[in-house]
This record gives sequence, structure tokens and C-alpha cells, in this order.
Amino acid sequence: MLRVPFDELESALKQALLGLGFADARAQLCARLFAEVTCDGVYTHGLARFPRFVATIKLGVVKPEASPSLVSAFGAIERWDGNLGPGNLNGYSSMQRAIQLAKTNGIGAVFLANTNHWMRGGTYGWQAADQGLFAMCWTNTLPNVPAWGAVAPTVGNNPFVMAVPRPGGENLVIDMAMSQYSYGTLSAYTKRDQPLPFPGGFDAEGRLTTDAAAISATERALPIGLWKGSGMSMALDLFGAMLSGGLSAYQIPRDSLRESGLSQAFLAIDPKGLGVDQMNATADAMVANLHAAEPVEAGKTVRYPGEQTLKVRRENMELGVPVDEELWKQLLAQAY
Amino acid sequence: MLRVPFDELESALKQALLGLGFADARAQLCARLFAEVTCDGVYTHGLARFPRFVATIKLGVVKPEASPSLVSAFGAIERWDGNLGPGNLNGYSSMQRAIQLAKTNGIGAVFLANTNHWMRGGTYGWQAADQGLFAMCWTNTLPNVPAWGAVAPTVGNNPFVMAVPRPGGENLVIDMAMSQYSYGTLSAYTKRDQPLPFPGGFDAEGRLTTDAAAISATERALPIGLWKGSGMSMALDLFGAMLSGGLSAYQIPRDSLRESGLSQAFLAIDPKGLGVDQMNATADAMVANLHAAEPVEAGKTVRYPGEQTLKVRRENMELGVPVDEELWKQLLAQAY
Repeated sequence: MLRVPFDELESALKQALLGLGFADARAQLCARLFAEVTCDGVYTHGLARFPRFVATIKLGVVKPEASPSLVSAFGAIERWDGNLGPGNLNGYSSMQRAIQLAKTNGIGAVFLANTNHWMRGGTYGWQAADQGLFAMCWTNTLPNVPAWGAVAPTVGNNPFVMAVPRPGGENLVIDMAMSQYSYGTLSAYTKRDQPLPFPGGFDAEGRLTTDAAAISATERALPIGLWKGSGMSMALDLFGAMLSGGLSAYQIPRDSLRESGLSQAFLAIDPKGLGVDQMNATADAMVANLHAAEPVEAGKTVRYPGEQTLKVRRENMELGVPVDEELWKQLLAQAY
Repeated sequence: MLRVPFDELESALKQALLGLGFADARAQLCARLFAEVTCDGVYTHGLARFPRFVATIKLGVVKPEASPSLVSAFGAIERWDGNLGPGNLNGYSSMQRAIQLAKTNGIGAVFLANTNHWMRGGTYGWQAADQGLFAMCWTNTLPNVPAWGAVAPTVGNNPFVMAVPRPGGENLVIDMAMSQYSYGTLSAYTKRDQPLPFPGGFDAEGRLTTDAAAISATERALPIGLWKGSGMSMALDLFGAMLSGGLSAYQIPRDSLRESGLSQAFLAIDPKGLGVDQMNATADAMVANLHAAEPVEAGKTVRYPGEQTLKVRRENMELGVPVDEELWKQLLAQAY
């Protein structure tokens, strides 16, 4: 692991994107988003994901020059067509539009059809919370989890994000897929030949197992909360697909390079108009109570979601962003 | 188990409520909501819950005559004070107000502080979906689940509801608490001396267990998706408490009869203004794909959340609503 300054990582990504046909401002934003995901410690969806992103552009699945267009609007809700543009740029502009709608109406929602993988969902939660807004957003995915009671993947793992703004960027942001473990995590445990810390799916005999390889083989990953995550996945899918006029998860190609035409939802709420005096004090007190809880492992303070992200971000901004040496070399070769 | 006609159940509940100081229209609605929950097969929160509801009224925790008052409003969002009125009446009027806001603005949200237990959360999802709207709502609760990594209950199980409207009332409604099993379910398994079908919490040695009695003893119920449900519980809690100006879960009395001052959120989305042509066809095709999935147990069709509810409702409307004979006798004595 090498550590490189954030700016160097961002610049190299930008140069690579310019070479792929991105206009300057779009290359800049797309590079920043990839660099931020890496800096925040979500390494699976940062630089490590960039080669696959490039591959989808070369395949014509992701169209660098395409951006969302408005389909219809009513009050504080809008439908947009993502025109198969880059998922993170489409996601960013959709959340930004939801924020604008919320500033005018207290709440705003954008439903986006025909978009691509948004990389880290939490990005759009942090985006809203950093601007002082509450937010929720979600996406569907290719079918990669069996619905509860089904043998084969039928529903998406449909990541769902909720963001709560707090002063100083100490936002609470939860970014959770509807499967207990991602296939990336399963293959990491398989490579290290380690059992999962908790059961993550079913083996060939239909038994709950911590054997990651067995789960990858059956493709029977466990939904969070068993029947509950399965049901929530369906609800998220239909909210996004029906309101955007886009595809449902089962219609999305089951090939990670061809996964495209996703349906997403972006909601933002601006608390200002409600005039809640003690809003931040409520969050501070809740966090203080959490930190005071007796931990299962002595010395390991109980955390809220997003707390560790901010710590890692600050550390990586100071010490440099950890990058895989081989991937970094590849990026430099592509960029310069 | 006795079966009584829906109307008889509703009338008896109404008479009992009139005797407790409810005005006629409020007794009528409150009775209908309790009867519907029972009729829908959510027996734990229907007639079986009524004696406890009556006890909270007699204790002065729930105030029969109180209804929500508007605190502040901005665009399509509003803050209301529940004034410690009956939780189901407060929930119903809050969702109805969110629906009105959505009809005008496409989307609407009501944040409600100082309310009481809303009984079955799904009620407010069905309410919106039956009127053709998408909806989300949630409540916090007394702290009854340890945050992930904590020994003792720190967060609420904060039920979360999403509703998708479909013609003919065939709505998809998911109503899920953030704990894998409720304490009611744990005590039912304990009474029957049966293991849970899946691990539901930790025993005294900190091991995952299917022993319901052991979990009730440690109070270490499992959040859905482990750390995920724990984080989502915190996000739901802060959304509700910060935007309503109400209490956070940790501030709510840990006594099921004194659990009061809850914070809730009600969101509705009216799809009409977006003009999505194939909206219902999208849902129908998704459901058809689900029904076509190969089931784990031969002959047991995979279902979407809400599907079974509608089946049970139709059956109970036809054959009569199943009620516990002793509870029914008690209600009749109270009512007439």
C-alpha cells in the first residue's frame, strides 16, 4: 500500500477521464468523487473500481458525454432520464436537484431512470448532509439476492442511504445494501480462506453458513433481516422503477460489466423552515448516550454510522490516500 | 379461537372507547383501526393489544381527547405536536395530512413529536396506498435493542414502513422493525419451548442463539442485518426526533405501559403528476417474475410483502375475524 496525496490522486483520475472523452468540468467532478470514495476508506468503490468503470465506458455501457434530462415534473418531485451517463455524475446532479427542490419546498425528490452504477451510495448522502440537509437515496441493481423463499437471485441488493446533517461535517450516514455481505466481501474471505464472522447465506444443502466460497457457489446470499431485507429490496425497487418509469431489478442484465439502466430515487429535506431550536443538541445527546454505552469488547466504543468514515478521511487527507501500488501505476500510465 | 363478524368487532370496540371518553367520530375511527389490524391477521397489535391500550388511557399516558396541533410548516413539510393523543388516531391524521400535502406538491411530509404507540405501522402504509400514493413512515420506540457492539438496549427497534400502491388494493406494504424478532415473538417461542427458526440474539456468553428465553434474559435482541439494522435504527430515530423536535429513543421511558413521547415521520408521494404510463405494468411484471421464481420449498410460491395480508383480510371478512374467546368476552363486558 502506497499513500498518495489526495490532489495527486484526483489529478491523475481527471487526466485519465479527459482521455476517455469527458469534458473538463465533468472529468473534474468524476475524479473528485472517485478520489473521495477512496479517501473515505471505501476502497472497493474508489480507485479499485476505476478500471471496471473504464471498461464499461469502452464497452459503450456508460456514455461519458451523457447527462440527465428532465422528463416530467410536478411540485417538488421530478422524473429524469439518466441517458446512460456515468452513474456518479448522474447521482450527484440528481441529489443536487433534490436539494434545490427541498430548499424551495422543504422536501424534494428526483426519480432517475436509465442510469448506471452510482459507485458508493453514501456519496450522495454526504453531499446533502454537508449542505445541511437530511437525505435518503437508493438504487436498484442487477438481481443478485434470492428473494426470501426463492432458490436463485431474483431481487437486487439495492443499496439504501440515509443521511443526517450535523455541524462540522460529523454527519450520520448509513449506506447499506440489502444483502448481509457483498460478493466482493465474500470473495475477499474466500481468498483469505477465512470464515465469515456471521452467517452470510446458504450452502448447497440449504443450510445457513459462514463459508464464503459455498455462498458464492450457490449465489444464495442472505438478505439483511432474512425476509425483511428481501421485502425492503422489493419496495425500494418498485419505488424507484415505478416513479422514474425505469427498469425493475429483474430486468437488469446479470453481467457486472453490462449492468445498466438502473432506477434510482433521491430525497432531500431542508430542516430550516421547520425552526427546530434544539435540533443539533438532540443529535449530540443521542451520540453522547451511544458513546457512553457499555461495549461488548472492552475499550471499543460503540459508534454511529459515518463516524469511522470521517476519522479515516481526516487521517488519509493528512497522511495521503492509501492506493494499491499496481493500480496506481496503471492509472499514472493511463493519465500521463 | 372464535370468529366474529368485522362489524361486530368494530362496534364493540367503539362502544368500549366511548366509555373511555372518546368522542363519537374518534371512537369510530380508533375502533375501525383496531378491527382492521385484527382482520389483517396482525393479531399481536389488534384486539390482543386493546387491554394494554385501555390501561395506558387509565394511567393518563394516552389522552383520548388530544389530537395533533401544527407547530410549524414550510412548503410541503410540517411539524406537528401529538399532544400525547392515541397513537393510531395521531398516526392516521398525520398520514392523511402528508397525503394532502403530496396531492398539492407531489410529495409531503409530516414530522410528529409527543405521540404514543401507533399500534401496527403498516396501517398508515395501507392508508396511503389505498388512496393511490406511495408512502414511507416510521416511529421510534423505547430503547429495546443494543446498538451493534453494545451490551444493553440503547436504540429502539423503530418500525419502518414502505408502501407501493397497486390497483385493486394489491399494494406492496413492508412493515418491519429493526430487530429480527419482537419480544412478543420471543415470549411466544419461550412459552412453546421451541427454538427460533433463525438466530435472534445473543445468550449470556455472547453467542448468537435461537434460544428465545436466553435472549429475553440478556435483552440482547439481534438487529436485522447486524450492524446495518443498528445503524438504520439510529438514522430513523434522528430523522424523526430532529425534524419533529421530539424525543430520541434513548429518552423514552423503558416501561411498556409508560412508553410515550414518541417521534414519527410520515412521507407520501402522489405519482399522478409524473405521468408514468407503464407504472402499474412495471409492478405487475415484477410480481409475475417473483411468482415464477423457483421456491426453496416445493409448492410454496415466493411472495411480496402485503400479499399474505390481503389474502388473510379477505378470508377474515368472509368467515369472521378470529378473536381470543376470553378477550372477546372481556371486550363485550366493557362495551355493553
